[in-house]
Amino acid sequence: MILEKRIPLRYLFNLAKVDLLIVLLVSSAMTFVTNYFNIEYDFPISIPAFLGTAITLVLSFKLNQSYDRWWEARKIWGAIVNDSRSLIVQLIEFTDEPENKLVREIGQLQIAWCYSLANALRKLPPAQQAEDLIPDSEWSKIVKQDNIPLGIHVAIAKRVNQLRAEDKLNAYQQVQIDETLVRLTASMGMAERIKNTVFPKKYRLFLHFFIYIFIGTLDIAITGLIHTIFEVPLVVIIALPFFMLEKTALGLQDPFENRPNDTAMSTISTAIDRNIRQLLDLPGQPDPLESDSFYAM
Amino acid sequence: MILEKRIPLRYLFNLAKVDLLIVLLVSSAMTFVTNYFNIEYDFPISIPAFLGTAITLVLSFKLNQSYDRWWEARKIWGAIVNDSRSLIVQLIEFTDEPENKLVREIGQLQIAWCYSLANALRKLPPAQQAEDLIPDSEWSKIVKQDNIPLGIHVAIAKRVNQLRAEDKLNAYQQVQIDETLVRLTASMGMAERIKNTVFPKKYRLFLHFFIYIFIGTLDIAITGLIHTIFEVPLVVIIALPFFMLEKTALGLQDPFENRPNDTAMSTISTAIDRNIRQLLDLPGQPDPLESDSFYAM
Amino acid sequence: MILEKRIPLRYLFNLAKVDLLIVLLVSSAMTFVTNYFNIEYDFPISIPAFLGTAITLVLSFKLNQSYDRWWEARKIWGAIVNDSRSLIVQLIEFTDEPENKLVREIGQLQIAWCYSLANALRKLPPAQQAEDLIPDSEWSKIVKQDNIPLGIHVAIAKRVNQLRAEDKLNAYQQVQIDETLVRLTASMGMAERIKNTVFPKKYRLFLHFFIYIFIGTLDIAITGLIHTIFEVPLVVIIALPFFMLEKTALGLQDPFENRPNDTAMSTISTAIDRNIRQLLDLPGQPDPLESDSFYAM
Amino acid sequence: MILEKRIPLRYLFNLAKVDLLIVLLVSSAMTFVTNYFNIEYDFPISIPAFLGTAITLVLSFKLNQSYDRWWEARKIWGAIVNDSRSLIVQLIEFTDEPENKLVREIGQLQIAWCYSLANALRKLPPAQQAEDLIPDSEWSKIVKQDNIPLGIHVAIAKRVNQLRAEDKLNAYQQVQIDETLVRLTASMGMAERIKNTVFPKKYRLFLHFFIYIFIGTLDIAITGLIHTIFEVPLVVIIALPFFMLEKTALGLQDPFENRPNDTAMSTISTAIDRNIRQLLDLPGQPDPLESDSFYAM
Amino acid sequence: MILEKRIPLRYLFNLAKVDLLIVLLVSSAMTFVTNYFNIEYDFPISIPAFLGTAITLVLSFKLNQSYDRWWEARKIWGAIVNDSRSLIVQLIEFTDEPENKLVREIGQLQIAWCYSLANALRKLPPAQQAEDLIPDSEWSKIVKQDNIPLGIHVAIAKRVNQLRAEDKLNAYQQVQIDETLVRLTASMGMAERIKNTVFPKKYRLFLHFFIYIFIGTLDIAITGLIHTIFEVPLVVIIALPFFMLEKTALGLQDPFENRPNDTAMSTISTAIDRNIRQLLDLPGQPDPLESDSFYAM
Repeated sequence: MILEKRIPLRYLFNLAKVDLLIVLLVSSAMTFVTNYFNIEYDFPISIPAFLGTAITLVLSFKLNQSYDRWWEARKIWGAIVNDSRSLIVQLIEFTDEPENKLVREIGQLQIAWCYSLANALRKLPPAQQAEDLIPDSEWSKIVKQDNIPLGIHVAIAKRVNQLRAEDKLNAYQQVQIDETLVRLTASMGMAERIKNTVFPKKYRLFLHFFIYIFIGTLDIAITGLIHTIFEVPLVVIIALPFFMLEKTALGLQDPFENRPNDTAMSTISTAIDRNIRQLLDLPGQPDPLESDSFYAM
Repeated sequence: MILEKRIPLRYLFNLAKVDLLIVLLVSSAMTFVTNYFNIEYDFPISIPAFLGTAITLVLSFKLNQSYDRWWEARKIWGAIVNDSRSLIVQLIEFTDEPENKLVREIGQLQIAWCYSLANALRKLPPAQQAEDLIPDSEWSKIVKQDNIPLGIHVAIAKRVNQLRAEDKLNAYQQVQIDETLVRLTASMGMAERIKNTVFPKKYRLFLHFFIYIFIGTLDIAITGLIHTIFEVPLVVIIALPFFMLEKTALGLQDPFENRPNDTAMSTISTAIDRNIRQLLDLPGQPDPLESDSFYAM
Repeated sequence: MILEKRIPLRYLFNLAKVDLLIVLLVSSAMTFVTNYFNIEYDFPISIPAFLGTAITLVLSFKLNQSYDRWWEARKIWGAIVNDSRSLIVQLIEFTDEPENKLVREIGQLQIAWCYSLANALRKLPPAQQAEDLIPDSEWSKIVKQDNIPLGIHVAIAKRVNQLRAEDKLNAYQQVQIDETLVRLTASMGMAERIKNTVFPKKYRLFLHFFIYIFIGTLDIAITGLIHTIFEVPLVVIIALPFFMLEKTALGLQDPFENRPNDTAMSTISTAIDRNIRQLLDLPGQPDPLESDSFYAM
Repeated sequence: MILEKRIPLRYLFNLAKVDLLIVLLVSSAMTFVTNYFNIEYDFPISIPAFLGTAITLVLSFKLNQSYDRWWEARKIWGAIVNDSRSLIVQLIEFTDEPENKLVREIGQLQIAWCYSLANALRKLPPAQQAEDLIPDSEWSKIVKQDNIPLGIHVAIAKRVNQLRAEDKLNAYQQVQIDETLVRLTASMGMAERIKNTVFPKKYRLFLHFFIYIFIGTLDIAITGLIHTIFEVPLVVIIALPFFMLEKTALGLQDPFENRPNDTAMSTISTAIDRNIRQLLDLPGQPDPLESDSFYAM
Repeated sequence: MILEKRIPLRYLFNLAKVDLLIVLLVSSAMTFVTNYFNIEYDFPISIPAFLGTAITLVLSFKLNQSYDRWWEARKIWGAIVNDSRSLIVQLIEFTDEPENKLVREIGQLQIAWCYSLANALRKLPPAQQAEDLIPDSEWSKIVKQDNIPLGIHVAIAKRVNQLRAEDKLNAYQQVQIDETLVRLTASMGMAERIKNTVFPKKYRLFLHFFIYIFIGTLDIAITGLIHTIFEVPLVVIIALPFFMLEKTALGLQDPFENRPNDTAMSTISTAIDRNIRQLLDLPGQPDPLESDSFYAM
């Protein structure tokens, strides 16, 4: 997540440099072409003008859809925070034994689940924290499965069942805790859905193509209206925000890619870690993850 | 689902070729007409310009609604992933017997349910995987019904009841599992709703008609402004993105048609298959469905 | 629901004929007025142009809101499909007696409920199918109430209670089935809400008024730009899509009016009828409702 | 709720008269100013044109947000209908004693709750119907609280508990009925939220200010293009729909103000009243509230 | 929350003064530059015109997304009102002992929870009301945790468990009350999500950059069209609403910042306080929080 800090210019420049070059080339080429073929003087400016409006429309909708993905991703991780807390509060309330070994293990497993899900979504190797928190014999089995967080959830479910067997939970309480696990499973699946569903590619391709048509006609139309020296810079300046907004949309649309744009899953997981350890008086509380950069992971 | 790979040009060309031809013909005809009737010289360019903006607006909303259908379809299949997993985790947690015969059969039936639903939505013959996984006597009855996945669900429900009768599940646990089945039934019905509800046809017809009016007036307006040789190509180039975006909307709006645009139901079903078999230690785990094309089914 | 078939031209023409006439008259009148008062030659085309864009904007939002009503109506009936199926699957699962008299009666009542709701929403007389399926003594009481489907639901609820009294259902199972009934009641109420809530009328009036201002100024602006003979046809052609989109919005906004635009409630009810009879092995299964027209009811 | 009847012109005129006057004054003043300062002849019409488009955009979004509030208000009252019905159907199903004194009292209290909530939202004195339906001793206590419907709900909750104490309800059934009460409490709170949350005022102020800038520049631009006599009427006619749409948005945004625009809470409460009395065979059924005006309250 | 009162001009001026200055400077600079370089006379006004439309589009979407955040924040606090009430009504209904010590303590804790959450979101020191309502020994432990409201919730959960242990609540009732606590935890997490998620910064940066490009080109285009004296004021007046709408969006997007724009959390908490004390006959009822300013906190 980009923070409320000054974004380094180098980052913004890197973001835009390819587009800058393309616009420069296209614009210079078109300027040359229009000068060469002499088709410029009658070309109405209202054609690129309405194309520009049209593109902004499509781009705005695209930006909105990307924003929705980004916001949904954040909502999912918000729900994970809520349900992680609820799970522990429920265990404390129902068993009345925050120091019970099984309860504490469930707390540790839930912490491991969060870190593991974050790493799985980012296609990173299994989280070190998970390995540290889970008994070796269980971890070696879980790590072999396609889906590590799902394996951890089964480990939690088994402990919940054991609490039921030891009569620390009654039947309704077990079902109520299962309800929380179902919601956590759903959150995991939702995050995977966003990760695995490519934003419709043709949509993006055609929008991109549309922007080039706009720049091309703008270049033709502008020729002769202003001094040739100002022509290319003007086109570049006008084209820039379109490419930048497109890039912003692209950045928002994929929030689990291990990039500055990401949902701040590590920060959130650390906060959950601290919450759970405080609730259960578990040792080893990590420091809150403070970012010294312009973004938080 | 179109993947993050290079889309073959042949595919894109096939998509656009009819429209390309129509625009060419309409544009050439209009060029001829305007030259013949001599009505061209006063026709203001702002008429096609505002019509173009107007069409983009309607088109953007249409694209948004189609996108919503596509995204909803993906959400439904995401929910199916979640609830399939939850069903198995619940059975493991509640019975504590992952090797129980009934539990394993339910796992197999749920796998069969996913493949069957995908095939039913795509109007394909009943899934081979379902036939393989379900005992012949039951399959022969299920296959006669209008709705095969619904028949499979009844078969699951009966086994859940048997687990209750054998006291492997208590009354609350049975109800909690039924809750998961209710959600799966709802997901099935939602997918059928999207499949069976034609996107308002008049809406599409009038939008199409609108685009032709735009191209017509654009052609009239452009005559005389630029050299006749460039006239038709320019109209074609400007018209192209409109048709392409319309086509994109059309593709997104129907996500269960056995086409590259589809929700990747086979890939998802295979992933569920693997998850369930890993959780229950069932043999016969399929390989993950990797696509060697530019799309995944 | 308009199907994916060729829509007869007569239907489209009937839809548009009043508007066509109005535009013709208004346009001809304006042409006369502008010629008479000689105010035409300086009137800038950009005024109707921006008004046209403005109207499209308001119209697109209106179209979107109407589409949402239409889609919500379809979602509600989709939920009715799901919950009708779930109700029967739950009864089979919980009682394990699909041939139980009460279970079969509930199946029949649920079928009757669907047909009755469809007829009530369309302000048609009580459904014949309901009368056939419900015992006369009960039907004569139900038919006297304001709300027939609500009466049928009470009849279902009483039978569920009887199943509980006969110990075919335990207490949790009864509550779980009640949950399904609550959802069905909610779906009924949602459909009634859409039926009974008039789309804000002032909104539509002002939008209509807006379109006339657009046509008026367009007519004034166009005078003198093109030959008088082409003037009126051009205005008619440009105005047409605006009226057509407005008509489309109107059609979508009220989906329970016994018109081709309707949610296909009869088709859906027949499908539910077939599903339930197949699940419970009830005789008298109707044929699926196939449409031989361009729409399905 | 404005009905599908002819809206009296006097009502529409009253709505617009202040704006009409303002536009007239502003427009006349601007005409005077532009004539006096002689700045008119070069002022490009595209400035008011794009401002008009810009305003329509912001206005459309505003209209959409207001519409969402209005529709949400209607949804809330639809949910109240559903849950009022469900509450009674559940009591009949669970107790099997529709003639039970407590059940009948709950029915009466729920009717009183609806009328009271409608009056509370409209800031009217406590509903007469509530006073008639609730025993004096209880009413005198309830009426002293900040929130009368909340007080009535406590009275219902106590009777539900008494039914439990008398073993007419088992423990699960009580919880299931409580679920319905929780939903009703939520609906009440949602309606209060809409009532008590002022639509962002700066948003409306700036939009209003924007419209004036548009009219001002339009007036300057139009001077000299058409005969001075037509200038002011034209500006008024173009400005009118903008103000009218703004007024429509304003009307939709606050749906509980005891105005023709309101959600038809009295009509809905009367319908619930009739439904509940028919279900419980209570006497004193009111006639359905038919409107003889162009709106229903 | 800004109230339906006259907003002091000083507040509006403070909001806009920086932007006013920037526009003035930019505009004056551009006027100077265009005069100096003599590039003005051919520059078409349709370039800033379409850029203005484009910006309004992006701005409208941004405004819509900010509005959604603001409205969601208000919804969350609406849900907190509902669930706080439901919690108390449930305790009264289930225990039938509103004067029970534990019930009264839970009431007090829930009041403390609301005030504490409001202060935590506004990054204020722990609420005085919470300190007053919670026994010192508990408060001193709670106040040490990262998340004070979460600590209070655990205190509530423990008392609910005690009520269960004393048999004032049966097992289902406890689970039903836990359901309400789960919803309250979710509301808290949702509010924290809005608080902690920075609105995409690049989006805002590029939009801002876009507005400057618009003002720059507008300035170039306007030169020579009107008298130089009117040039800068006109640009300022046209640019103003864009900056104002941007500011409005900024204000709406962060609703928990201890500013006039905030969700009125203190007012809502006080209303909950009064409701709960009236329901439980607790002393010390605060006066409703009336605002004597143009906003409510």
